[in-house]
Amino acid sequence: MSDRLIYMPLGGAGEIGMNAYVYGYGAPGKERLIVVDLGVTFPDMDSTPGVDLIFPDITWLKERRNQIESIFITHAHEDHVGAVGHLWSELGAPVFARPFTAHLARMKMEDHGHSPRNVKTVMKWPETVDVGPFKVGFAPISHSIPESSALVIDTPDGRVLHSGDFKIDTDPGVGEPFDRDMFKDIAKNGIKALVCDSTNVFSMHPGRSEATLKASIAELIAEAPAMVVATTFASNVARLRTLAEAATSSGRSICLMGRAMRKMVQAALETGVLDDFPSVVSSDEAQEIPRQNLMLLCTGSQGERRAATAQLANGKFQGISLKEGDMVLFSSSTIPGNERDVIRIMNQFSEQGVDVVTDRMGDYHVSGHANRPDLMEMHKIIEPQMVIPMHGEHRHLREHAKIAENAGYASLICVNGMMLDLSGNRPKVTEYVETGRMYLDGSTQIGALDGVIRDRLRMALYGHVIVTVILDEEDEMIGEPWCEVRGLPEMGSSNTPLVDALEEDLSQFIGRADHKTITSDDKLEEAIKRIARQTCQTEIGKKPEVSIVISRLM
Amino acid sequence: MSDRLIYMPLGGAGEIGMNAYVYGYGAPGKERLIVVDLGVTFPDMDSTPGVDLIFPDITWLKERRNQIESIFITHAHEDHVGAVGHLWSELGAPVFARPFTAHLARMKMEDHGHSPRNVKTVMKWPETVDVGPFKVGFAPISHSIPESSALVIDTPDGRVLHSGDFKIDTDPGVGEPFDRDMFKDIAKNGIKALVCDSTNVFSMHPGRSEATLKASIAELIAEAPAMVVATTFASNVARLRTLAEAATSSGRSICLMGRAMRKMVQAALETGVLDDFPSVVSSDEAQEIPRQNLMLLCTGSQGERRAATAQLANGKFQGISLKEGDMVLFSSSTIPGNERDVIRIMNQFSEQGVDVVTDRMGDYHVSGHANRPDLMEMHKIIEPQMVIPMHGEHRHLREHAKIAENAGYASLICVNGMMLDLSGNRPKVTEYVETGRMYLDGSTQIGALDGVIRDRLRMALYGHVIVTVILDEEDEMIGEPWCEVRGLPEMGSSNTPLVDALEEDLSQFIGRADHKTITSDDKLEEAIKRIARQTCQTEIGKKPEVSIVISRLM
Repeated sequence: MSDRLIYMPLGGAGEIGMNAYVYGYGAPGKERLIVVDLGVTFPDMDSTPGVDLIFPDITWLKERRNQIESIFITHAHEDHVGAVGHLWSELGAPVFARPFTAHLARMKMEDHGHSPRNVKTVMKWPETVDVGPFKVGFAPISHSIPESSALVIDTPDGRVLHSGDFKIDTDPGVGEPFDRDMFKDIAKNGIKALVCDSTNVFSMHPGRSEATLKASIAELIAEAPAMVVATTFASNVARLRTLAEAATSSGRSICLMGRAMRKMVQAALETGVLDDFPSVVSSDEAQEIPRQNLMLLCTGSQGERRAATAQLANGKFQGISLKEGDMVLFSSSTIPGNERDVIRIMNQFSEQGVDVVTDRMGDYHVSGHANRPDLMEMHKIIEPQMVIPMHGEHRHLREHAKIAENAGYASLICVNGMMLDLSGNRPKVTEYVETGRMYLDGSTQIGALDGVIRDRLRMALYGHVIVTVILDEEDEMIGEPWCEVRGLPEMGSSNTPLVDALEEDLSQFIGRADHKTITSDDKLEEAIKRIARQTCQTEIGKKPEVSIVISRLM
Repeated sequence: MSDRLIYMPLGGAGEIGMNAYVYGYGAPGKERLIVVDLGVTFPDMDSTPGVDLIFPDITWLKERRNQIESIFITHAHEDHVGAVGHLWSELGAPVFARPFTAHLARMKMEDHGHSPRNVKTVMKWPETVDVGPFKVGFAPISHSIPESSALVIDTPDGRVLHSGDFKIDTDPGVGEPFDRDMFKDIAKNGIKALVCDSTNVFSMHPGRSEATLKASIAELIAEAPAMVVATTFASNVARLRTLAEAATSSGRSICLMGRAMRKMVQAALETGVLDDFPSVVSSDEAQEIPRQNLMLLCTGSQGERRAATAQLANGKFQGISLKEGDMVLFSSSTIPGNERDVIRIMNQFSEQGVDVVTDRMGDYHVSGHANRPDLMEMHKIIEPQMVIPMHGEHRHLREHAKIAENAGYASLICVNGMMLDLSGNRPKVTEYVETGRMYLDGSTQIGALDGVIRDRLRMALYGHVIVTVILDEEDEMIGEPWCEVRGLPEMGSSNTPLVDALEEDLSQFIGRADHKTITSDDKLEEAIKRIARQTCQTEIGKKPEVSIVISRLM
């Protein structure tokens, strides 16, 4: 069979998070592969309680480890680079990125005991890297973190442009402005496929530039009567600079609070992304500075419980606490799902007499993703044969594909695990690969379908009853069944303790159970479970999880 | 001591939900009391897993049961009337409401075995009810449910206006338009206090009327090529009518899906709130109707998992399933905290090829609450001595109080459990009462601080280990310790099953334990717990909850 060009998302298509895309070229089944991005998703209480991080399931890649040429990271957001340290040893291929991204990827490698030399720095387009049948270049594109890149992927079947996360911002503050001419030039001999960010396809107005925030943020901070706390994503270095400059110009010292905040500023300075940043004070020094001359720049804009903002909301962080008249600026928008945590913090500040300012109250935040008109513009700049939407939930991908088709480009909704053959004029589905999510839980990885999380959710929803029964050599019960409950009310409707009701019902049952039941662990367990759940239903109106320990003394 | 007028929220002030406000008049400690609203809050997985409903803790009222004159319900939203059935027997006072609200409150009373005659119907202002020292009237005010009312509460110390939930809508579709003249008239001899809805204080633009939706909804539904599914709060009868009229005028039959939807339409017709509603078809009949001639009106706009919309998203409801080309309209906005559930459903529809339309894409929804300029207008219409913000989180109350003070009204942030003396010219805090939340959990009520929910959350976050140890008369262990795990990975880092590692470590410990430890249940449990958690930390990197059953054979 003849060689072909394939594309397959393993994460990031059908969700926003844990990006991982695969391109391949070669004979079917023997393609040489490159991986674009290896990101994480964050857990939540509704679906993944207790989980630390979520990765794409890369089993398919692991089984083709010797076909993998290399890994490319488009930018340093956690949903693109976050799993590099965790998963690298399972892939083993060199990692390529631009300096700022590479710097952060190396730190992640080192955190996991891998040599930072496995991360290679690539300078921006027109520099390229040859990897097997591919030639890959990093074309600078504006986003909300420095050195974001679209990947120019040259293949024997033509050129693919993988947009990465992007917006059209010709004045992004830090880093290269969006460069229409460069992209026109990249596309001038034709682009086979534009694989394209879909995040903001439902935002109908043209996106705003980072530059539009400067005046309003400066004015807000200048007019604040006392201390200012500003929070945003630490990785949004342009925003950090906007905030810092506003602070400086209103005579405020800046204190960076939260490890990620200090790490990002340092990384930006070390890699030359920032040529300067106002000098900062330590939290000890900050305590000596009059409040109206101070701005804290804090992690935790999404309400993360251990971050600086949440700790300040709780009362104190590194010796600093807020007072009536201080102001907290959320220079951010809340990612869906984080609303409750963010709102909790805002109310805690309110209780301290602190004013909370959000992007709903003025021009204090812009998104890092292209809105619908900007996506349409990007299609037009590139004029690809096909548009493959990525980086979006199903509804985003579907809407993006519709728009592309309406504009005359071949398109298709391609979700995780769907392998496309891009060799022809239209994308063609060639295979469905089993994909999913892996959970980092403490120090182990568990599969999403292992049942571990299902059990946690059940215990949380229904409570847990533990029944212990001891039987002697003649299958006679020794003493009574012993019950403990966790996460269940103490008293039942019959006004006796729930455990007493359980023990009585179970005792009666076991006393009367026939030989066949009492001699079979399975039958006995099944019966105990049924009775325990029935008793709970009667006493407290719910059927809990039941664990049963039958000890047979021999 | 002289008589005084007091006000105290037990729920709804410092949160959005479970409204319950108390007014009293009389000698301190001997005030005659009225209760305004008895609502519920809905649980969530983050803080209240497994809980069915959340009520305000009404202990303070229960202890003063013989001082309670009556209960007034401003309108029939669950956060105002939802706890009436559950809590009525603890208060025992008559319930007053306007016909539509009373109709629904009676159903709730009957659901809980109370006579519906305890709910008395009051017609709208200027009709009033005399209850002890109070004279109370229901002044119609526009909101998102029929017959919402502000309460005019006349007391020996002057007139209080309790706004209830409201917006300024002079063309609300169903029910009375907002009547400036009536409120001017109510206020003409002076209002002591305006106790006022704060929900939308951060919405800066003037609110829009329900009427502004008619044209855009009609156009959207007329242009839909196939079946239309529309979802909104069932209690928003005006919206139901707008949607139904749009369907009818585009030649569609209407099928009501979800119990609440049918209940509300029926209640509105029975109480005369609606004088007509287009005839509806059953779900059986609906299946015979061409898709382009059908609209389903569904419960579940907030993503509720058992509601009609979620079931359709899952595949089928009452024999009806969606097809490519159908459209789902969310004529609603998503309440913070419900985003994940709503988004999940939208993506499920997307996977079916169904277009989802939301209020972000056009004029398909308006809020039922007064925005900031409307709140300011209301202050001006009433010109009260004081404005007491209610129905809001702390940040809403604080902002509302600021606005009121800036406009020259006395104000104050009054949260749940804070008792105000309104007798003077300014509100004065006189007492703090312990308040909180009660959880309906299955068939029992548990306190928020009982530890039940804490245990559920811990099991969900950390998993659960159960250890069983049997000791004989000489305190020798019989067999080995037996371990079971729930919600934890099977394998540990040493590549042995986690339970084996636990059993080995515990066995070793118990074999070596000294007499003092082995003979004391407390000491033994403590040691076992410590070791089990330590083993788990080593093997899987997390410290689970541990339940220990020690059986001593005698």
